Amino acid sequence: MVTVRRMLDTKRLEMVVMVTPEETVADAAALLAQHDIGAVIVSSDGRTAEGILSERDVIQGLAARGASLIETPVSELMTRDVIACHPQDTALSVLERMTEGRFRHMPVVENGELVGMISIRDAVRVRMEEMEKENSSLVGMIANSW
Amino acid sequence: MVTVRRMLDTKRLEMVVMVTPEETVADAAALLAQHDIGAVIVSSDGRTAEGILSERDVIQGLAARGASLIETPVSELMTRDVIACHPQDTALSVLERMTEGRFRHMPVVENGELVGMISIRDAVRVRMEEMEKENSSLVGMIANSW
Repeated sequence: MVTVRRMLDTKRLEMVVMVTPEETVADAAALLAQHDIGAVIVSSDGRTAEGILSERDVIQGLAARGASLIETPVSELMTRDVIACHPQDTALSVLERMTEGRFRHMPVVENGELVGMISIRDAVRVRMEEMEKENSSLVGMIANSW
Repeated sequence: MVTVRRMLDTKRLEMVVMVTPEETVADAAALLAQHDIGAVIVSSDGRTAEGILSERDVIQGLAARGASLIETPVSELMTRDVIACHPQDTALSVLERMTEGRFRHMPVVENGELVGMISIRDAVRVRMEEMEKENSSLVGMIANSW
């Protein structure tokens, strides 16, 4: 089973984009757009995740607050109850938690420190590759038994 | 192979949410938030898709236009080159096109008319179920050959 650690090793690390809680939603939206990503990690010190701000959070803020959203600090809109994963978790377990909780990004935390971020896109790709390989090896077993 | 038609049959149809090109981005954001969805179809007549507006489009608009986004008509921000699928397409082909094109929603069009919308979440779920069934039946074949 592929682990989160292996997923991080093959991922470009610059995709973990952070903002501080004091930055505005406009700042965060600029980063989301610039990097073409779905969420930023909110952190004061760059080592612990105090929250996560997703494009879904921004849309909900826009619907609720209108134009004033622009100057709103990220801390007012971010999701604080961040569900993190560990490098030793499997792609399958991460995917199940994301699907069940209906979120698309998980910070990866090891010894209390942020070491990366995993998206549902990453987890789905890995899980589908795993199932394809499983499938091929089963087909191989059948072919060999003829 | 599961088709788009079968996927639509098992999907709650109220999830196809539409706006007209003249409505504002604020109107569209309110619908995205209210229905907790990632995209709305843009249509003047409710039968043909002139465009699609995703949360990603809204974030990019927010980054580029700031607060004036609120009053911007949807037509200025929507993706016009909509890649649609047909009810007879398979979940696999739809998933491949979405992954390659990096988009998450496809209107379903039959005889020039809009009949639904498919999200990458739908396609992934169906495709993973297909692969699991395929694996189980292979395991069954092996068990029976003992």
